[in-house]
Amino acid sequence: MKLKIALLPGDGIGPEVTAQAVSCLQAVEETFGHEFIFASASVGAVAIAETGDPLPEDTLALCKRSDAVLFGAIGDPKFDNNPDSKVRPEQGLLKLRKELGLFSNIRPVKVFPTLIGNSPLRREIVEHTDFVIYRELTGGIYFGEKTLSPDGTSASDLCLYTEDEISRIAHLAFKAAKNRRKKLTLVDKANVLESSRLWRRVVTKIAESYPEVALNTLFVDNAAMQLILNPGQFDVILTENMFGDILSDEGSVIGGSIGLLPSASVGERYSMFEPIHGSYPQATGKNIANPLASILSAAMLLEHFGLREEADAVSKAVDRSLREGIVTPDLDPKSKYGTDDVGHFVATHI
Amino acid sequence: MKLKIALLPGDGIGPEVTAQAVSCLQAVEETFGHEFIFASASVGAVAIAETGDPLPEDTLALCKRSDAVLFGAIGDPKFDNNPDSKVRPEQGLLKLRKELGLFSNIRPVKVFPTLIGNSPLRREIVEHTDFVIYRELTGGIYFGEKTLSPDGTSASDLCLYTEDEISRIAHLAFKAAKNRRKKLTLVDKANVLESSRLWRRVVTKIAESYPEVALNTLFVDNAAMQLILNPGQFDVILTENMFGDILSDEGSVIGGSIGLLPSASVGERYSMFEPIHGSYPQATGKNIANPLASILSAAMLLEHFGLREEADAVSKAVDRSLREGIVTPDLDPKSKYGTDDVGHFVATHI
Ligand SMILES: CC(C)[C@H](C(=O)O)[C@@H](O)C(=O)O
Ligand SMILES: CC(C)[C@H](C(=O)O)[C@@H](O)C(=O)O
Repeated sequence: MKLKIALLPGDGIGPEVTAQAVSCLQAVEETFGHEFIFASASVGAVAIAETGDPLPEDTLALCKRSDAVLFGAIGDPKFDNNPDSKVRPEQGLLKLRKELGLFSNIRPVKVFPTLIGNSPLRREIVEHTDFVIYRELTGGIYFGEKTLSPDGTSASDLCLYTEDEISRIAHLAFKAAKNRRKKLTLVDKANVLESSRLWRRVVTKIAESYPEVALNTLFVDNAAMQLILNPGQFDVILTENMFGDILSDEGSVIGGSIGLLPSASVGERYSMFEPIHGSYPQATGKNIANPLASILSAAMLLEHFGLREEADAVSKAVDRSLREGIVTPDLDPKSKYGTDDVGHFVATHI
Repeated sequence: MKLKIALLPGDGIGPEVTAQAVSCLQAVEETFGHEFIFASASVGAVAIAETGDPLPEDTLALCKRSDAVLFGAIGDPKFDNNPDSKVRPEQGLLKLRKELGLFSNIRPVKVFPTLIGNSPLRREIVEHTDFVIYRELTGGIYFGEKTLSPDGTSASDLCLYTEDEISRIAHLAFKAAKNRRKKLTLVDKANVLESSRLWRRVVTKIAESYPEVALNTLFVDNAAMQLILNPGQFDVILTENMFGDILSDEGSVIGGSIGLLPSASVGERYSMFEPIHGSYPQATGKNIANPLASILSAAMLLEHFGLREEADAVSKAVDRSLREGIVTPDLDPKSKYGTDDVGHFVATHI
């Protein structure tokens, strides 16, 4: 297969981990006889420094002519502490999601047996965790109208959803549940929000077309508790943008390391793959960042294009690095291995 | 001291636990020589059944002539599964908060040494947890304009905040921090939301008047992770309504039992005290509901009116019931004690 892959390494540790994912993809290329054509472009704080724009025209154009995007990380503390700066790195990511129509963010959360001891949760609670979150990514309060009164004393954000926006991601989530343990949990706040009541109506209706999948619903506050009390109860979680942001980050730490979690953002036409972790500025350039989440994001990319055997080969090589302790210091403080050692180990075992 | 206390037991286990809180308050009355005048009224699903209204006029009027409200619980699964029902129990609670101007919801989270083993988190993670959440309670997306398009295919909720709404609760939170470990964490999503950027500006400005308090900020997704990874880092958390709903429920389970956590909702003039837990319909009428959160809410009521010694006496009696194992089955599955036994034990040890 021939694939054009746009690389958007972004900020902080983004470039370091993306480089390792690329060498793993190159190993797949060789071993399985594919052709992957890589091209890089800048995004985020790095792009602001270069061009003043967190998502330069050229970057967007590159993504649109590619089959998939491999994304690193975005964000710089210099902007976080200044709510008034007009240009922010995150705008680049949000615009990219919107422009590429990436309406569905998919985050699998599972526990790696060798890492259970790293989880903040007790072993018996977290042991059987294996779920995936479908987070709506291009609607809701993230993209609704924003206002700031002229005198600066009041501000607002609108959370708006349409039936179509809900229905397209709901279908993806139900299909995923059908291929998994056949359980879908809709998370909303239907006891308070009108938009949540729309989600509930639309999703309940769609459920009729998937009789083999059991639908249940949880209020978001309860879901935030259940994720910690009994994460094993979940199979597929479906939710709107803001709730998905919060719950997927909460979910990401229960497995023991956020440094291992990949994600996919997909739409009708484009798709983007990115580690859950952020730009982790403190670690930048130190060769200590964990590349496994980025490598597993590359595996999700392969899977997305039907290259299942190839994706498996990557996952197995990652499992092996965990089993043999070829990991970065975040997973084992005594480890002497760097970002590049781990990437190299995985690439050579594909 | 003479205090008029309105009792709103509400739904599910609300009446059972409130009854025990009342007997503890009566014990305080006797022991310390105060006069508490109790009057009850209905709210929630119970009130809908009686009058069609989740917050009948009489109930609101009673609250307004009282010095404080002791609230039980609200909610009935019959309404949750029907997003289209026009009247819902929760509306009663939301209207009550708004009508009484209860803009600040205060939820202390701490770990009871005897219950650490019940926490889903590992002991060393949760051990030093002792924080309090200040959640804004009468603004934001809960109370903003809601729309549903005539054809029912789109719906919206508006999240609006004004400087005044932010500033009044911020002052309460800073004062609390001053009397505690002098650290305040503002949780927002200032990298995406205009209303969050207003929170950040207003709170940062107010911080100048509290030079002894250290202010830091966290994005809500990161806060949801930090609460599990390292809850000991928090002292006072300040946040808006929706984020506070999610984070305070998440926070409530880390201590080992939500059945122990009280809350206070205060405004300029009125105040209301209520357990964190909900109406727990499955347990209704079985004499197994844990009354301690309601009893500790009564202690917060006493403290609110400056009756510190009295509040301490209640807390100490609760600690004693935990130490001696006079607890309901949620805390100890082998326990033979019922709701009334636990309430009686605490009341007689005040
Ligand atoms: C960087 C930020 C805008 C983004 C979001 O909130 O969506 C991030 O937290 C994420 O979850 O990908
Ligand atoms: C019942 C519901 C409306 C309420 C809320 O969301 O505020 C509850 O979850 C709470 O936190 O008190």
